[in-house]
Order: sequence, then structure tokens, then C-alpha cells
Amino acid sequence: MKGNLIFAQSGGPTSVINASAAGVILEALEHSENIEKVYGAAHGIVGVLNEDFYDLGLEDKEELKLLCQTPSSFLGSCRYKLANPEQDASDYERLLEVFKKYNIRYFFYNGGNDSMDTCNKISKFLTAKDYDCRVVGVPKTIDNDLMGTDHCPGYASAAKYIGTTLMEIYCDAHVYNSPQVTVVEIMGRHAGWLTAAAQLAVEEGYGPDYIYLPERAFDLDKCLADVERALNEKGKAFLAISEGCKTVDGKLLPELSGDLEQDSFGHKQLGGAALVLSDLIKAKFAVKVRAIELSLMQRCSAHLASKTDVEEAHEAGREAVRAALNGESDIMIGYERKALDHYEIEYTHFPLANVANAEKAFPDEWINEAGNGIKTEFMNYILPLIQGEPELKRKDSLPRFAKLKLEQAGEPTDYVK
Amino acid sequence: MKGNLIFAQSGGPTSVINASAAGVILEALEHSENIEKVYGAAHGIVGVLNEDFYDLGLEDKEELKLLCQTPSSFLGSCRYKLANPEQDASDYERLLEVFKKYNIRYFFYNGGNDSMDTCNKISKFLTAKDYDCRVVGVPKTIDNDLMGTDHCPGYASAAKYIGTTLMEIYCDAHVYNSPQVTVVEIMGRHAGWLTAAAQLAVEEGYGPDYIYLPERAFDLDKCLADVERALNEKGKAFLAISEGCKTVDGKLLPELSGDLEQDSFGHKQLGGAALVLSDLIKAKFAVKVRAIELSLMQRCSAHLASKTDVEEAHEAGREAVRAALNGESDIMIGYERKALDHYEIEYTHFPLANVANAEKAFPDEWINEAGNGIKTEFMNYILPLIQGEPELKRKDSLPRFAKLKLEQAGEPTDYVK
Repeated sequence: MKGNLIFAQSGGPTSVINASAAGVILEALEHSENIEKVYGAAHGIVGVLNEDFYDLGLEDKEELKLLCQTPSSFLGSCRYKLANPEQDASDYERLLEVFKKYNIRYFFYNGGNDSMDTCNKISKFLTAKDYDCRVVGVPKTIDNDLMGTDHCPGYASAAKYIGTTLMEIYCDAHVYNSPQVTVVEIMGRHAGWLTAAAQLAVEEGYGPDYIYLPERAFDLDKCLADVERALNEKGKAFLAISEGCKTVDGKLLPELSGDLEQDSFGHKQLGGAALVLSDLIKAKFAVKVRAIELSLMQRCSAHLASKTDVEEAHEAGREAVRAALNGESDIMIGYERKALDHYEIEYTHFPLANVANAEKAFPDEWINEAGNGIKTEFMNYILPLIQGEPELKRKDSLPRFAKLKLEQAGEPTDYVK
Repeated sequence: MKGNLIFAQSGGPTSVINASAAGVILEALEHSENIEKVYGAAHGIVGVLNEDFYDLGLEDKEELKLLCQTPSSFLGSCRYKLANPEQDASDYERLLEVFKKYNIRYFFYNGGNDSMDTCNKISKFLTAKDYDCRVVGVPKTIDNDLMGTDHCPGYASAAKYIGTTLMEIYCDAHVYNSPQVTVVEIMGRHAGWLTAAAQLAVEEGYGPDYIYLPERAFDLDKCLADVERALNEKGKAFLAISEGCKTVDGKLLPELSGDLEQDSFGHKQLGGAALVLSDLIKAKFAVKVRAIELSLMQRCSAHLASKTDVEEAHEAGREAVRAALNGESDIMIGYERKALDHYEIEYTHFPLANVANAEKAFPDEWINEAGNGIKTEFMNYILPLIQGEPELKRKDSLPRFAKLKLEQAGEPTDYVK
């Protein structure tokens, strides 16, 4: 089918989301027989609704390739959530209007759970309206919690950052001859995949003593007993804790201190688990406690990306375009492992309806019985994903990010204020 | 002079302090005609006083070389402070006893301001007691505030981490189409050198809007006006603030919330400046504010070390041994720039008495008039220091740190409990 393409990014960014962007854009530009214009929407679905997009065909190809080492969503992201079309179809009608105006026949949405849900709703709406458009989701999430894929683009680079950084923190946190507790807080709203990556450091001999995932109820008394045991054994305790850990009553750690904000998806604004836990530990043991949040660094440290992750993310973007050109729609690109004796993946096409809004938890069988550690079996899963270091182009020994012209192609409106 | 050597590390660790250690140890092992045993003291001066040290001649040379990519003090550090010998000489007497027992004729102490002071006192005491021992300080501090040297080993790697990480955070923090303030807290108790490294990111086009150093009194109203200006101009504000920033009344930002601990040197235990400032910004502008502490990562991220820094730190260790073998004592090794048209340094020998307990502030002429930014002239100073990436030996795409045997050589006592 002949027409134009819109690509947009959504949700929290990752170190490799732009590698997928480069995949979509560069592959699309190679198929000008079917895809005439390649547009990039500013700030996700908001840019589509507002006709705020760029003509990416005007960009320098070398700069587009540099997107593979440029963290975060170069087109911007948004926290705007489309209504359920059965309740309020106005955004979808508007989207159809824009698609018709610009003859959009290919729509690629690069995001996580919420984005795949958005993608699915759009796809269904367009089909119901008999508007022919191929809708493909390109996954990304450091949380690694999407259904329909062995792992998610962005996870491995975040995991590699976490493993490496915990090893380095271990060295620093064990240097003094006085008792010290170190609590590192790792992202992951509901799933423990990221926090489990702390096991990478454990296996190398420089890891946390205890790891707490949101998949198990957090028991403060047990945790304090863990700290006491470690302090008694070696005068140090090193904990990795997920921001999403909840007590058996469903309370997040920061909820003890009250004021949680909510974003427009109804997710609670997290952070502060390490700080609150540190205060509790300090109160009980009167030792030096350091709370460390890996914060945005864990999702934007492209300088420490996994080459495997970057290459797969890029290829997922290209595969999305190939699938759409083949007539496929309403799918998300996924990864499937093909072999047991070595690491090899196949790019799969997974129905969006099956991925939308479902979440893949960290497998229970990889959590130890006490619920405070990860089993070595997890290494078979994660180690292949973090392999390799991309060759980074640098300037002055600092990162050289893609510099794009971003020439306006649409006629921006203020449909979404 | 023939005899044995003790090497010890002190103060907060850095990414390259072990590169200096490797320099001292490997150089000393090449001079067995004068240096018979090379001992490493556990936990700084405490290990010396307690006869708790290792025979480093038993280590594998390849592992010792790997110290150049192993962050933090591999021998451990301490927070123990020697008394002023005029008030209480008992620690010095004990030290002399240990030195005599093990025939220590070479003493190398690897640390920052306090360590150079310790080194100086020990040197003077030994001279007064007519005990012949060469005492040489090997500098290290991410704070870059030592007198007698153009820059300090460890600073450049921390600066490179800060520059790179701020660039990455910039990308992440500018992604949403909604107002957002990001406050990054950077170490530096009194000197702004580390926080000024944020200018590296500014020059590349991905830096903070405003940078606040402890060298200028922190004015909250001015800072809030800065935030307002940035928010009005582009809907985002990105600040870098030193943990050591103080109001004109001498108040640290966290002092607004009360409970500061003190370490045994009488330094205030800092941290929390970004959090407190974030709360103040949130209260005033009711926007999303994210506080990020670069925490231990800025001083232990060896994976992002500057090759120049690693090589210079290593050479400083070797130079210390060469100087001592030449009969020099009571000095610290320093760096001096030799050329204006290109970067070249000479290793200098600076009298310990002149370095001890003095602090080199960030030059006033490199701070802008408003006191909220750094001038481009600073780049001539800092850029050469962060150049180059060391070739890292990895295992499983994770860091491979030095694995040492650390065979006990002394007969540990509990002189210091």
C-alpha cells in the first residue's frame, strides 16, 4: 500500500528507544516505492493529534544512525492518555482526520504497556472505520514486563547499568572499617526484572547481600533481620530494593511518609523507597546508612548500553516496517529465543490485543525461598542480553548524540493544549 | 636506603586511587635492591597502628595491573584521625614502634587533604625521633582541592562521569511536553570543581541551565527566579547544585530540615541538598520536580574513567617511589602543566607542609557574574583531563576487578579497636 508513515514514541524513555526509531526510519526511507513521507510526531500521540510532526526524510542519514547511541526519546514523549473509544471517541475521530489529511497508511508506536494499549485501540478504531492503515507497535521498556516477547528493548542496557554500577558501589561501600549499610533503589513499578539484575553483580562477587522484588510482599521485620545478620557477619549490609516493593497490606515503602503523587495513567509517582528504608534501618541499628537511587541514570546511560540490546532494538524497528509492508497490522514486534545451546532470537509478530495492558512478572521460580535473593538460574536468561559494548562515536571524550534538523512537516494545531 | 615499605590508602575512594596503588606497588617491586618487602596496610593508618598489613610481593602482577580499572581503595580506608602530636603523641610512638619492628624505611600515604596532613605530622615526628624513613604523599581526591598540584588524581574521572551523565539526564529530563524541573546534586564539600564539571555538558549542548557552586553564597530567591525564567522560556529547568552550597548565613541547604551528622574529622555529613531544593521549588511552582543525587557513582564509576586520569594516577604512584629512592621525603607528588599550546604535565614534588589542610577553591574568574554558571574559559583547564577511554578488561561484559590474595604479613593487634 502506498502512503505516508507516522512514527511516534511514548512512555518513559530508555537508552535504546532511539535505536528502534533509527530502525523504523532508516528502513522506511529505503522503501520509498510504498512509503512516501516518513513523519516523526512530537511528543507521542499528542503530536499526531496536533499535526505536530517532522519530515524525517530531510535528515542526514549519518545523524539518524547516531540515534543508536542517543538515549531517551528524540521525538519527545507524553503523559496523555486516549480515552476508551466506547466512552469518548473524539480523539480517535481527530486522529482519523489527521491520518486522512496526511494520507497516513503506516503508523508505528514505540512504547511500553500503555502505548501498546493505545496502539491496539487505534488499530481497532481505524479498522471499524474502514480506514486502511497498518498499525505496528515497537516495544520498549526497561521494566521488561511486556507480554509476547522474551525480553523488551531497553531492559538489557538498564540491567547492564545496574549490574556494573552495583559492582562499583560495592567496592566503595565496603571500604571503611566501620559498620555501614547501603540501600540501592531500583526502578520497576510492578515487575522485579530490573531489580533482579542486581544478581549480575552478585554472581561476579560484588553484589548486594539481599535483593527485594515487588513480586514478593515486603516484610520489614524480615528485612531488618537480614540487615542485622549481614552486619553481624561482616559489619556491612548491602541491599537492592525495587521502588515497587509493597508490604502484605499493599503499602509502598514511601507511603509510610505520606505524600504520593499520581500521574495521568493513575500510576503512583514512586521514589523514596531507599530513603524511607534507610531511615528505618538507621533508627533500629544506629549505624551509617546510605540510600542511593539509581534514578534516571538506569534508563538513560547509553554510554553503558548492551550492544546486543542496541542491535536488537534497531532490528525490531526495521522488522516493524517490513511486517507492515507485508500487509501485517495490529501487531507488536517481539523477540523469541530460538536455541537452547546458544543465544539466538527470532523477531515475532504478536497480536496487540494480547499484549495490551498485561504485565509479565518476574518468574517466581527464580526468586529464592526467603524472598530476599535471586537464583543463579536467572543468569541463563539475562547474561546473553547484556553482552557487547557498542563502538561509541565521541566528541571530546564525551558522547556525541544525534543532531537532527527536525523540520516541521505538519501544520501544528492546539487540539491538545 | 635499604628497608621495607608500607603503602596505605585513606579518605573517600575514587575511580583511580587504585591506579596510584598499582603505581607504588609495581614500581617498588622493581627495586628489590632497596625495598625488600612491600606491605599494604588495611584501612589506612589504622592498619599501620594495628600491624594489620599484607605482603603485596606475593600478588600476581597481572592482578596488580588490574587495580588500574578497579574503583575504590582496595586496601580499605578509615575515618581515624591522628591527634596533634603536641597534644598526644601516643599514636606516633606506636607508629614508630611498628616501623622499627618491621624496618619500615618507606611510607606512602594515598589520600586527600586530611591524609596529607597525617603524612606531614608523621614525617615531622619521625625526623624529630631521628628515625630515617622516607614519607611521600600520593594525592587523590575527586574534590580537586589540594594545593600544590594543577589537578588531583580522581578528579578527571569523576568530572567525566558528571559531564557524560548530565548529558544523558538532559535527554531524559527534556522528553515530556509538560513542565519539569530537574535538580542534580553533585559532591564537593567546600570546593566547586566537581559541580563545575557540569559545564562539560553545557558546552556540548546538553547541560544544566544553571550551576551553583559553594564558592558563591547560595541565594534561594535568586535560584527560584532562575527556575521561573527557565520554566517560562522552555517549560523546563535543569539545575546542578553542589552538596556544599551555603546561604550567606553559612547554612547548608539540608540544614533547613535539621539533622546533620558529623564524621570524626568534624566534617558535616552532607547530602540531601537536591531533595530540599526540590521541595522548595515544588512548593513555589507546583510543577513536577525530580531530585537526583549522583551519590557514590560519581566517585566509583571506573567504567567511565578518563584514560588520562588513570595513567597520571598510576604514574604519580611510580613517581612517589622514584622520589623516595632518590632520598626525597616529606613531599607530595603533584602535577604541573608544562605547555600552553598542548597538554603536557610534569610530576612535581611539593612540600607536605604547604599542602596539608589547605584547600584550593574553584577560581572566582571562571564563575559568571550572576553566580549561577561557569565560563567557557574553564574548558581549557578541564577538557584535556578527561580525554581517552582506558581499554577495560571485562568478564561477561561486566567489569573485571583485580582479585588479590592479600596474605597477612604483620601480626594484627587491636591497638585501634
